[in-house]
Amino acid sequence: MRLRKKPGVREAMANYPKLVPQDAEQYKGKWREFFGNNNPIHVELGTGKGNFITTLAEQNPHINYFGVELHEEVLIKAVKKAEEKGLANIAFLWINIRELESYFAPAEVDRFYLNFSDPWPKKRHAKRRLTHNDFLKQYKKLLKAEGCIQLKTDNEGLFEYSLNRFAEELFLLKEITFDLHNSEYAEGNIMTEYEAKFVQKGMKIFRCIAAHPAQLAANFVENE
Amino acid sequence: MRLRKKPGVREAMANYPKLVPQDAEQYKGKWREFFGNNNPIHVELGTGKGNFITTLAEQNPHINYFGVELHEEVLIKAVKKAEEKGLANIAFLWINIRELESYFAPAEVDRFYLNFSDPWPKKRHAKRRLTHNDFLKQYKKLLKAEGCIQLKTDNEGLFEYSLNRFAEELFLLKEITFDLHNSEYAEGNIMTEYEAKFVQKGMKIFRCIAAHPAQLAANFVENE
Ligand SMILES: C[S@@+](CC[C@H](N)C(=O)[O-])C[C@H]1O[C@@H](n2cnc3c(N)ncnc32)[C@H](O)[C@@H]1O
Ligand SMILES: C[S@@+](CC[C@H](N)C(=O)[O-])C[C@H]1O[C@@H](n2cnc3c(N)ncnc32)[C@H](O)[C@@H]1O
Repeated sequence: MRLRKKPGVREAMANYPKLVPQDAEQYKGKWREFFGNNNPIHVELGTGKGNFITTLAEQNPHINYFGVELHEEVLIKAVKKAEEKGLANIAFLWINIRELESYFAPAEVDRFYLNFSDPWPKKRHAKRRLTHNDFLKQYKKLLKAEGCIQLKTDNEGLFEYSLNRFAEELFLLKEITFDLHNSEYAEGNIMTEYEAKFVQKGMKIFRCIAAHPAQLAANFVENE
Repeated sequence: MRLRKKPGVREAMANYPKLVPQDAEQYKGKWREFFGNNNPIHVELGTGKGNFITTLAEQNPHINYFGVELHEEVLIKAVKKAEEKGLANIAFLWINIRELESYFAPAEVDRFYLNFSDPWPKKRHAKRRLTHNDFLKQYKKLLKAEGCIQLKTDNEGLFEYSLNRFAEELFLLKEITFDLHNSEYAEGNIMTEYEAKFVQKGMKIFRCIAAHPAQLAANFVENE
């Protein structure tokens, strides 16, 4: 169910068939055909206006990027950024993240990014948080065994919640920081639109990496 | 190497042979003989003045408790609390935690508590933090497979550090909270002396549980 308040935006989207593939479901499991190469696939979930993912795409031509976003009013801005930069290694999915499994095959994705996802602070909305166990199970399935999820947020509650859910789903946590911009991981960090606003206000950014549980299994053997 | 500035304290300690066993090393692997039962063993590392561990011992007669503390000036206060409460299920080790393996055999301990451990914020002092990998490896060895470490701290830097080290050592993280006293885990929480001070100042308390990696392995099979 898509909200289509602004027909103008919808038509605008159709002007970028290479960046916003129509019937994108047909490429499930064969995005390499769409891109014409076998490069790794990195997917930002809830991409918003797209500064993060288009900057990464510019910097890393040998990675294929996706921006997944439900709201066309923001997505169209991301698409236009990609167009202006002349990027050939990025595509946008104008979908609900709940439907991700219709667009990617198991183990087709190398990395997910979750940047400043809506915190949904009320307990009764927990199922909408993009790190709810149901979502994590989905990402786990679509990720390669070597893959990971990188999460950034300004929201302490969401961060706390996410760490617990990652641990529950047996992701291997790494590089947890409560203040990204004053941490050893600050270098090379690409800011999202939300991040830039929060940082300007002097707010701290939480960040962690959650590696696929398969890596945990590998580590386990090594460790013991 | 023990600092023995106050001979008075040293002698006072000798007055409590049942609470502060002399040659405690001889009980390594056979604390059940010391206590005369086979009850679980819970150990607080850096016990300070002992409110936490003596209260737990009072509440749970079927668990055997240890308070481990290097500094006799604070330890004697903990010992006196235990004496006043007439506890028979607690003992104190007046030792450096680095020497823990001389006092407990592998898998002899059911639970470790780390409460408000010194943060040692300078990087060059990281090895002194009680959640440094070297310490965690030691605890892992002494813990039963079903065992866990429960950590509380007011110090954000130490908490962040500890989460990362626990994850590295493949402990299974659980019940992570950034604000214990306003969390679902507040009920039944026993405060330490340091905790009471911090809470009075309105500071938030961080808490997590780190379960032995063996439980992770068990969960892993279940999950997949
Ligand atoms: C708070 S904004 C952050 C945007 C961007 N990541 C940033 O950091 O600037 C969250 C974005 O996620 C999108 N979003 C939330 N839930 C979604 C879902 N289930 N499917 C697709 N997009 C979603 C929202 O539309 C919104 O654009
Ligand atoms: C900050 S105090 C906290 C005391 C108590 N846990 C509380 O929360 O009130 C830390 C305690 O750990 C003890 N400690 C630190 N390192 C130690 C070590 N390596 N061996 C034994 N005790 C240690 C210190 O002597 C001190 O009493």
